[in-house]
Amino acid sequence: MAPVQGSYDYDLIVIGGGSAGLACAKEAVLNGARVACLDYVKPTPTLGTKWGVGGTCVNVGCIPKKLMHQASLLGEAVHEAAAYGWNVDDKIKPDWNKLVQSVQNHIKSVNWVTRVDLRDKKVEYINGLGSFVDSHTLVAKLKSGDRTITAQTFVIAVGGRPRYPDIPGAVEHGITSDDLFSLDREPGKTLVVGAGYIGLECAGFLKGLGYEPTVMVRSIVLRGFDQQMAELVASSMEERGIPFLRKSVPLSVEKQDDGKLLVKYKNTETGEEAEDVFDTVLWAIGRKGLVDDLNLPNAGVTVQKDKIPVDSQEATNVANIYAVGDIIYGKPELTPVAVLAGRLLARRLYGGSTQRMDYNDVATTVFTPLEYACVGLSEEDAVKQYGADEVEVFHGYYKPTEFFIPQKSVRYCYLKAVAERHGDQRVYGLHYLGPVAGEVIQGFAAALKSGLTINTLINTVGIHPTTAEEFTRLTITKRSGLDPTPASCCS
Amino acid sequence: MAPVQGSYDYDLIVIGGGSAGLACAKEAVLNGARVACLDYVKPTPTLGTKWGVGGTCVNVGCIPKKLMHQASLLGEAVHEAAAYGWNVDDKIKPDWNKLVQSVQNHIKSVNWVTRVDLRDKKVEYINGLGSFVDSHTLVAKLKSGDRTITAQTFVIAVGGRPRYPDIPGAVEHGITSDDLFSLDREPGKTLVVGAGYIGLECAGFLKGLGYEPTVMVRSIVLRGFDQQMAELVASSMEERGIPFLRKSVPLSVEKQDDGKLLVKYKNTETGEEAEDVFDTVLWAIGRKGLVDDLNLPNAGVTVQKDKIPVDSQEATNVANIYAVGDIIYGKPELTPVAVLAGRLLARRLYGGSTQRMDYNDVATTVFTPLEYACVGLSEEDAVKQYGADEVEVFHGYYKPTEFFIPQKSVRYCYLKAVAERHGDQRVYGLHYLGPVAGEVIQGFAAALKSGLTINTLINTVGIHPTTAEEFTRLTITKRSGLDPTPASCCS
Repeated sequence: MAPVQGSYDYDLIVIGGGSAGLACAKEAVLNGARVACLDYVKPTPTLGTKWGVGGTCVNVGCIPKKLMHQASLLGEAVHEAAAYGWNVDDKIKPDWNKLVQSVQNHIKSVNWVTRVDLRDKKVEYINGLGSFVDSHTLVAKLKSGDRTITAQTFVIAVGGRPRYPDIPGAVEHGITSDDLFSLDREPGKTLVVGAGYIGLECAGFLKGLGYEPTVMVRSIVLRGFDQQMAELVASSMEERGIPFLRKSVPLSVEKQDDGKLLVKYKNTETGEEAEDVFDTVLWAIGRKGLVDDLNLPNAGVTVQKDKIPVDSQEATNVANIYAVGDIIYGKPELTPVAVLAGRLLARRLYGGSTQRMDYNDVATTVFTPLEYACVGLSEEDAVKQYGADEVEVFHGYYKPTEFFIPQKSVRYCYLKAVAERHGDQRVYGLHYLGPVAGEVIQGFAAALKSGLTINTLINTVGIHPTTAEEFTRLTITKRSGLDPTPASCCS
Repeated sequence: MAPVQGSYDYDLIVIGGGSAGLACAKEAVLNGARVACLDYVKPTPTLGTKWGVGGTCVNVGCIPKKLMHQASLLGEAVHEAAAYGWNVDDKIKPDWNKLVQSVQNHIKSVNWVTRVDLRDKKVEYINGLGSFVDSHTLVAKLKSGDRTITAQTFVIAVGGRPRYPDIPGAVEHGITSDDLFSLDREPGKTLVVGAGYIGLECAGFLKGLGYEPTVMVRSIVLRGFDQQMAELVASSMEERGIPFLRKSVPLSVEKQDDGKLLVKYKNTETGEEAEDVFDTVLWAIGRKGLVDDLNLPNAGVTVQKDKIPVDSQEATNVANIYAVGDIIYGKPELTPVAVLAGRLLARRLYGGSTQRMDYNDVATTVFTPLEYACVGLSEEDAVKQYGADEVEVFHGYYKPTEFFIPQKSVRYCYLKAVAERHGDQRVYGLHYLGPVAGEVIQGFAAALKSGLTINTLINTVGIHPTTAEEFTRLTITKRSGLDPTPASCCS
């Protein structure tokens, strides 16, 4: 179905060159549309950090954090290597600047590949900040001045940026994940404010790299995730020596004469105030959708809590304007979600497809030192949806074979399956805390989408010795009260 | 359904204390049977290696090889750590004796846990070699002399042991995987004869530990596995500096005056003979079922190529005698298969169950340096079964994010889905070559068992950045001839 060709400059303008926007733009061109993609990164307020095309994931998200997580795991691996008999001196130190340089080099190579890919696929790339004039007209602020462009259709894919708290010194003295991966000095003793997955991941790799993170938590850990698993993640981090300041909020950040940062904070339950000194304060209190610069009122697009509500076709309230990726309201903020939603939208717009994005049962992983991954419902959501009497939870602790020789703690190696209690025992959700969690859960996500039941799960033959096979050994229910600790290994 | 209680000493005697036997024995007791389990390990011919309860997997199989593989990966990790900025001296050496000691200590702890588990579960453990007198009577050769015992039912779960080739010097100078994991000296330059998964895994970790393995292949690599994948595995090992002597068979092994082993061999195509000197010769040419000591003719049990044929209920040709695990003819020799088959058999015998073991679509993994895992059909088996016109193969190369900084080769990071060409495009098989392959494939095995289709696979949202997510990005078919090399990373 070809679009109605008006006198517009483009069939489609995609605003935002991140995962959602790029996937959508490339797929639209493949389906015959004339497409421009705007991309612009405002520097961070104090350090002035900025980056190239590719959006959050490539530049200040998944990619750098996975690399720093990997660096941290490799530090652990050096210690483990010694236990396995390698004559390695395990009193090792990281070289922060070398790590940052390596990470940034990789990012720049991805930026470059992304640009080449856009050129190959004939997407016009415009390095400018877009702002609506009306529902078909945009002003792009370029280095060379303003440029007005029009399109039949718009896809807003501007994503989000980290929030700062509204307290004295927050912006002047604090940094966010936008700055951390290119920070030109060692982070040192770091206060990580926020216990969502970004905060925990940053605290995790900083600890693994030998720095001293502290996590400040206002209310709960990993909001939106299964709370039993979330607390196990937090405990596994505390076991590694990362302190959690619970029920606490920051009040102010001041720079001392010695350059260190004095943070005053209070306990929200007792009202008690306290202070401590840090080298770095990292805000990880949430992300804000980048609606402000878009001038959405000019186009008539509705906004909800700095996000854009869309229907099941990713359409906004304005007929020719769509939104995908982190900017949309109430959906998982994840790269593969953004990519798939963007691609499917382009196919519906220009390829005659009717397939909609399915935002349910999206698997995800948290790259904490002991990783957590899950797919489907949390235990509490299953209970909320089906009632406690209709939900069966199978769970178990397990001991990864390779943990024994280096005597790594197996205390938090735990997994569970949340399932229908009666009938076919359809699996509602799977949760796994342990090594390479994302690699373990991905296949099970495909299984859930294929209608996995408990009967199928426990009759799937395991791959031995892996940790993933523990899912096939889940026979103890929470309801039974039996000990979920394994006895035997290979029989 | 309680067994008929005769005047037999036991309801069930399980012959063999490995994965199959132990699982069967424990489950039988749980279901009310009086059970004895015989276990006996004959020392290896030259070095006299023997071990405790638990069978091949625990003592000379999965567990020690996974640990040595892990040691080898940790050596790689030390080099990678340096690339990520850790100030580690990466000119490292392994301490073979320390590694062996650590591995053996772990095995002994598993032996101990296994014994305790048997005692707790009231399985009578008899450390003796069993030999049939008739179909209800066995003589157990114990240290203290012979003991005659009777049972209503027997389960033969004696497993197998490595074969030696019938050439001069093979037994006197060669070792097998039965000896390797407890070898009291460094293996040094090692000739690994055989390119099944055991040979390749041993060669792989020996190389990773800094030794010099050479693999001698008579005909094909990884017989029984998808041959495209098998050749990629071999190439990935060659890339790491492991030479493969193709179309070659050993002729003799002689010990030189300097203690080294002179191996003469010939090319089976050209007839050309050659020789080389090694520190160790490891036979990995296959395994032999341990039927000989059982005196099976006394019980009337049929044997086929030193294995025991069974029906779909694991029954032999003799009514009260069953077999499970590696000893049965024509089924996968894998621990989790043995465990599940043993357990299901016990439930059918004593628990009133009718559930049979499903030997199809069993996932497995090969712990080569770059790991290979698969589930379901190989490409050639799919073509054989359905015809080339009815099979579609989706494939792709991919680049693990964490490989970039240490500049690890991505040349053999490859995966494919073998599927129905028309209709629902049901997935017949999945094949993956890359890091943590077993962890990646396990969930997909559950998906295959749940009826996975290509449509479901590519609409499963990925977990980013993982390697497992590459399965959700499989859109290039072999038939299309398009380049299966990825362009973009996160869009």
